[in-house]
Amino acid sequence: MKKVNVNPVRGTRDILPAATELRDTVLQKILGAYQACGFRRIETPVLESLDLLLAGQGGENEKLIFKVMKRGEKLDVANAREESDIAEYGLRFDLTIPLSRFYANNISQLPVPFKSIQAGAVWRAERPQRGRYRQFVQCDIDVIGEPSINAEIDLIRTTARCLNGVGLKDFVIRINNRQLIEALLAECGFASSDFAGIMIALDKQDKIGIDGVQAELNGYPAGAVQRLVDFLNEKIETPQGVTSVFKGAPSANVLALIEELNVVMGTIRALSKGDYKILFDPSLIRGMGYYTGQIFEISYKDFPFSIAGGGRYDGVIGRLLGRDVAACGFSIGFERLCEVLETESLAGGNTGTRAIIFVDDDAQSLAAYGFAAEIAQEYSVVSVQRKQKNHRRQLENLQAEGYRAFYYHTDSGYQQRTVEFDKA
Amino acid sequence: MKKVNVNPVRGTRDILPAATELRDTVLQKILGAYQACGFRRIETPVLESLDLLLAGQGGENEKLIFKVMKRGEKLDVANAREESDIAEYGLRFDLTIPLSRFYANNISQLPVPFKSIQAGAVWRAERPQRGRYRQFVQCDIDVIGEPSINAEIDLIRTTARCLNGVGLKDFVIRINNRQLIEALLAECGFASSDFAGIMIALDKQDKIGIDGVQAELNGYPAGAVQRLVDFLNEKIETPQGVTSVFKGAPSANVLALIEELNVVMGTIRALSKGDYKILFDPSLIRGMGYYTGQIFEISYKDFPFSIAGGGRYDGVIGRLLGRDVAACGFSIGFERLCEVLETESLAGGNTGTRAIIFVDDDAQSLAAYGFAAEIAQEYSVVSVQRKQKNHRRQLENLQAEGYRAFYYHTDSGYQQRTVEFDKA
Repeated sequence: MKKVNVNPVRGTRDILPAATELRDTVLQKILGAYQACGFRRIETPVLESLDLLLAGQGGENEKLIFKVMKRGEKLDVANAREESDIAEYGLRFDLTIPLSRFYANNISQLPVPFKSIQAGAVWRAERPQRGRYRQFVQCDIDVIGEPSINAEIDLIRTTARCLNGVGLKDFVIRINNRQLIEALLAECGFASSDFAGIMIALDKQDKIGIDGVQAELNGYPAGAVQRLVDFLNEKIETPQGVTSVFKGAPSANVLALIEELNVVMGTIRALSKGDYKILFDPSLIRGMGYYTGQIFEISYKDFPFSIAGGGRYDGVIGRLLGRDVAACGFSIGFERLCEVLETESLAGGNTGTRAIIFVDDDAQSLAAYGFAAEIAQEYSVVSVQRKQKNHRRQLENLQAEGYRAFYYHTDSGYQQRTVEFDKA
Repeated sequence: MKKVNVNPVRGTRDILPAATELRDTVLQKILGAYQACGFRRIETPVLESLDLLLAGQGGENEKLIFKVMKRGEKLDVANAREESDIAEYGLRFDLTIPLSRFYANNISQLPVPFKSIQAGAVWRAERPQRGRYRQFVQCDIDVIGEPSINAEIDLIRTTARCLNGVGLKDFVIRINNRQLIEALLAECGFASSDFAGIMIALDKQDKIGIDGVQAELNGYPAGAVQRLVDFLNEKIETPQGVTSVFKGAPSANVLALIEELNVVMGTIRALSKGDYKILFDPSLIRGMGYYTGQIFEISYKDFPFSIAGGGRYDGVIGRLLGRDVAACGFSIGFERLCEVLETESLAGGNTGTRAIIFVDDDAQSLAAYGFAAEIAQEYSVVSVQRKQKNHRRQLENLQAEGYRAFYYHTDSGYQQRTVEFDKA
């Protein structure tokens, strides 16, 4: 056989038992909290058509698609001239685009509003770096068909409950509204055709500071840039604080957006019982172009990434149906969350005592497995194992795996022997 | 936007909430039973290198790989001449090949024996047909590094416990041994170089009958074919019955294989307490070429497919390490199992009462979500929903989703109203 590299493919990884068990525990707690709040899980295929994935809703992620080749007669490599001649499907790069297709395909069988859960892997061919993988899991909840802020409140309270459920407290939810940002930019004097470009610059404020943003905005009308920079320097902390930038009275629409932010923040703050914070952050932009209303993000202590993010995106879901459909979503970055839980030692281990029954030869199988069935209720795990030549090492290894009860075959049935080990 | 087809890609499907919940429940029960028997879950990436997938262990499945294209500079479509010029990775078509790579890559961190769980999707570009999908889930357990039949017993008792755990009884486990088949073929007079071809014919006995097998064997030595056909017609029901075909005394090796089958069957039969059967089936072959010892398969009533299959395959796992590693596995066909459970109405539904709190406007959000937190412990699900214009239909839809408790805002707090519906 040709020599095969046994490493996982570039940017992906093998996950060992202890880490997999942590992930499973965390995922089950997340799903449990989602379901207790009335969301229901769906599944879509990992492969989607490139027509769907490249339809313009994926932003930069469209460049990172792993593309799957045509097959059989459809594939003519020798005469192919460009990628589209040979590519047919792609691995999904998020769960939102598949949700839009799912919703359009199954709308007649779904309630209004439809509160969906999606939990699964997505793939992006990003340059691999520490803690960032080309295959990673996202946990998304979305409320489709609910235009009111009941959707936003529902998504935030549910996501907060998930994080509390896995043991995380003192996280910070930051919130803003894309329409409010746009009203602010218009008031500053920017043309609406420039909004998207300006938001890309604003989105970098975390990394490059206000001076950096100002430098990036070089070329836009100087007066408008100055008003925006003045606003950023004011460090506004409440939605109503935004009105300070307006020369005249803010429009009824702006006042309504502010009121909605206040309702969401007030409700979440009351529900938090002090376990977490929700803060207005006028510098919050979020990367994706498709957001149309409130946007939110959750960070934890000094970790240099957000562990959840989302917002209202009324344009995406309905696009395939050719009509408007209200939609709002919140996604937990599962890998990031697991990283935080491990770093903070919040990851719950396995509970219950594990037992091993040793057999010396095949003739003892019947007795050993019969005894395993007898004691199954007393232990979290009962395993039957052949006694190995180096039994001392076998016991040490089993102890490292969490086994604590060891049973041996004797003339008077199985006897437990307590084995003492040095604590590591 | 270009008109996009909203169907899932060919041979795949969307899974709606009720079906997803069934699948999640079944999967959790399977994983729970696996873990209680001492198996531990691992995860490998969905993408593997084509070098690995095409290394010759996948049999016919190697032809069904979805191949992922090279990217960036590595991809030169215009000058590509054949598939290997443009393909880099493949979607895994089973969980055994990835396990062999995982084991070689992580051996220093794994116990001996290593009892692994893998549960996840695999992809095969088969011609789609009813009940058969191009993306489907398998649940595999494997024991690596245990040469004795303790592995076989462990795998069978664990898989049987899974099936019992999801409510299935009266399934039939059939068992055979590839080495015993080979000894039998040698005794009949076939050359060992013909064994693989003869087994392919024998494997079709289910579908084409003994006459069909005999026709397929046309061209092999007539005397050997006749002896084999005579044997098949004898309808042997016990391992020792096989000895009837031997003209002289069977070899010690054959007697040992028979004894091992008896130990496995006797142990499993005792553990079954009559809930399921284990039968010796000399016609059982199993498709994959890599099996080297005992093989087994589970069927249920008249369903025309097996719901689990496996066996010993000592050659595969060690191949990447360049040395022998004992290995034995048992795989549950998750999709098939779910199909059986749904057909037999054994699928457990959701338990607990679901409650809805209605809100009339945003101003009620705080009170409504506060009340939701208060009653969270009393219900399995508490959801807050805007009251819709057609409230009667809203209630009917919610009832169809399983909601039974409905709370309304009143001047004296939230009041439950019982809503009676006609039973469908």
